[in-house]
Amino acid sequence: MPCITYFFFRFDKNLTEQSAYMQIPSLSDIKRAHQRISKYLETTPVMVSQSIDEISGANVFFKCENFQKTGSFKLRGATNAIFSIRPEERTNGFATHSSGNHAQAVAYAARLAGTKAYIVMPNNAPEVKKKAVKGYGGEIVFCEPNEEARVKTCDELIAKTGAIFISPFHHTDIIAGQATAAKELIEEVNDLDVIMTPVGGGGLAAGTALAVNYLSPNIRVVLGEPKNADDTYQSFKKGSILPVNNPDTIADGLKVTVGELNFEIIQKHVSDVVTVTEKEIITAMRHIWERMKIVVEPSTAVPFAALLKRKAEFEGKKVGIILTGGNVDLGNLPFQ
Amino acid sequence: MPCITYFFFRFDKNLTEQSAYMQIPSLSDIKRAHQRISKYLETTPVMVSQSIDEISGANVFFKCENFQKTGSFKLRGATNAIFSIRPEERTNGFATHSSGNHAQAVAYAARLAGTKAYIVMPNNAPEVKKKAVKGYGGEIVFCEPNEEARVKTCDELIAKTGAIFISPFHHTDIIAGQATAAKELIEEVNDLDVIMTPVGGGGLAAGTALAVNYLSPNIRVVLGEPKNADDTYQSFKKGSILPVNNPDTIADGLKVTVGELNFEIIQKHVSDVVTVTEKEIITAMRHIWERMKIVVEPSTAVPFAALLKRKAEFEGKKVGIILTGGNVDLGNLPFQ
Repeated sequence: MPCITYFFFRFDKNLTEQSAYMQIPSLSDIKRAHQRISKYLETTPVMVSQSIDEISGANVFFKCENFQKTGSFKLRGATNAIFSIRPEERTNGFATHSSGNHAQAVAYAARLAGTKAYIVMPNNAPEVKKKAVKGYGGEIVFCEPNEEARVKTCDELIAKTGAIFISPFHHTDIIAGQATAAKELIEEVNDLDVIMTPVGGGGLAAGTALAVNYLSPNIRVVLGEPKNADDTYQSFKKGSILPVNNPDTIADGLKVTVGELNFEIIQKHVSDVVTVTEKEIITAMRHIWERMKIVVEPSTAVPFAALLKRKAEFEGKKVGIILTGGNVDLGNLPFQ
Repeated sequence: MPCITYFFFRFDKNLTEQSAYMQIPSLSDIKRAHQRISKYLETTPVMVSQSIDEISGANVFFKCENFQKTGSFKLRGATNAIFSIRPEERTNGFATHSSGNHAQAVAYAARLAGTKAYIVMPNNAPEVKKKAVKGYGGEIVFCEPNEEARVKTCDELIAKTGAIFISPFHHTDIIAGQATAAKELIEEVNDLDVIMTPVGGGGLAAGTALAVNYLSPNIRVVLGEPKNADDTYQSFKKGSILPVNNPDTIADGLKVTVGELNFEIIQKHVSDVVTVTEKEIITAMRHIWERMKIVVEPSTAVPFAALLKRKAEFEGKKVGIILTGGNVDLGNLPFQ
C-alpha cells in the first residue's frame, strides 16, 4: 500500500500517533468528526419519491450527498482529516493523488483550513476534473498515467514541500468523517431496516458500517459493487483481500481495491455485498435522474441498482441509500 | 382563442360562472387555491448554491418545482381547476390538449379526483410524453399534428364524453393555482428584491405577478423569454398581443402565445421581459445541472439565463427564481 509511506512520512516523529491513525474509529471518533466538520458542510437532505418506491417495492430514503459541497461525500472525510491536524502543523499544506471527488474535497478543505493543497493527477485526466480542482484553489502536479509514476510523484512532492498526505480512504480520520453521513441518516429517519452504499476503497462503506454498528445495530448494511470491479465481493467471500484486476466500469469512483482497515471493518459489520452489471448501473442511474430530478454519478447509482436486483429481499423494507455524488461530465452521459 | 369554445361548452348552463372564470384572480382566489391543493402537492424546497451566486453575482433562491409531483408546477393549476369542480359535476372526466407538462398534470390531478382524463396529443408526440401520461392513468386521443386538428379533436371528444376542458394557462383557476408557487416562495424567503419566471402562455407569469402584487408589492417581477418565441416581449413593448410566429426554440414549453387574461395581468404587474438566445438558455441550464446537481428543462433555465444576461442589474440582489420543471428526454440533451 503506497499510503503507508506517507503515513510514515507524516508521523515519522511520532509512531504512537501513526499507529493510532490506522485503528478502527470509535464512536467518539465519529462523534468528534461530526462536531469538527459540521460547520463547514451541508446537512444534506433526505429525499423520497413515490415513483422510486413503486419501481423498487421498497420504501427508499436517499441521503443526498450529491448536494454536499464539492458535489460528494468525500468532503466529510477530507475535512475531518485536515482539521484534525493542528493549525501550526498544517502550514506546509496537504497532498493527495486523485483525479476524482477526493481531489476536489482535499482542495476545498485545505482552502477552508487556510493552507495549500497539492493534487497529483495523471496528465490525461479530463479537463473538467482539472478545472474543478483549480476552481477550489488546488495546485495540480501532473504525472504519467500509471501507478508507479503517481506514487513517485506524490512521494517527491511531499519530500519537497513537507505537505501532509491525505489518503482517499485508508485512514481512521477519513473513515470517521465518511461515517457522519450514515450518522445523519440514522438521526433523520427512524427504524430503517437497511442502509446501502457503494464500495470502492471502502471509506464510506466502512464508516457507514461502523456508524450503524454503534448507533443502530439492528440495521443491516448492504454494499453495492460493479461486477466489473468486484474485489470487495470476492474478498468478502474469501475472507481476505483479493486485489481488483483491470477494472473496467462506468462507475469510475469504484475501480480501486478496498483498503485493509476498511476491509477489516466491512468483514465484521456488513451483511452482504451485491454486484451489478454496467447495464444495471445505467438503468438505476436513469431512474434516479428521471424520477427524482437529481444528478448523480454512475458510482452513486450502484446501491440502488443492487436494490433493484434483489427486489424480493427488500420488498416493503425501509431502505436508506447514501447517494454519494453528482459530479458527471454532462457532455458524455450514458443515456440513449 | 380556441379555448373560448371550451369555456362556453363548460359553462353553457351558467354564463355568470363562465364570466367569473375569465376574471383576474383575487387574493382570496389564490389563498383558496393554496388551501385546496396543499394536501395533494409537494411544498417544494427552496435551494441555494454558493457557486451559482458566484457565477451570477446575485443571491439566488431557486423554488424547485422540478421536484413537484409530475415534475412541474403545472400540477398546481390543474389540481386547483379540477378540484374547484364539485364531485358530482366531474364524473364525465376532464379533457385537455397538450403533449407537455400540462398533460401529465391533468392526468395526475384527474386520477386524484377519482375521474378520467382525456389528453389530445399529436400523433407524432415523443414516446416519453405518451408514456408519462399513460403512467398517470390518462387516456390519450391522437390527432394530426396541426392546430386545426387539435381543436377539432378536442371539441369532438368533449361533445362525446361530456368531459370538462382544462385550459393550459388561460383560466382564472389555473392562474390562481400557479400563483401558489410564488406565494410559497415569498413566505419562505424574506426580503426578495426580484422574482423571475419564464413566460409561455403566461399562467405562471401572471400568477406570480399577482401573488407578488397582493403579498409583497415591493418585489419586482421579471420574466425570461426565448428570443425565438418572444411574443410576450413584443406584446409587452407594443401594449397588445402579437401572436408568436413559427417559434423554434429548445424551450419547448414556451412556444405558445401568451393568453389574453394572462397578458392583461402581465402588463399591469410585471416590470420587465428579458429575451435570451438558445445558446444562453443551454449555458444557464448547464450551470444549474452542474452546480446544483438537479435536472431542469430548457424552458426552466430561461429566467436564470435572463439574470446572467442582465448581471449588472441584479448584482447583490436577492432574486427568487421559480424552476418550473424537470421533464427532459435524457437521451436527447443539448450538452456537448
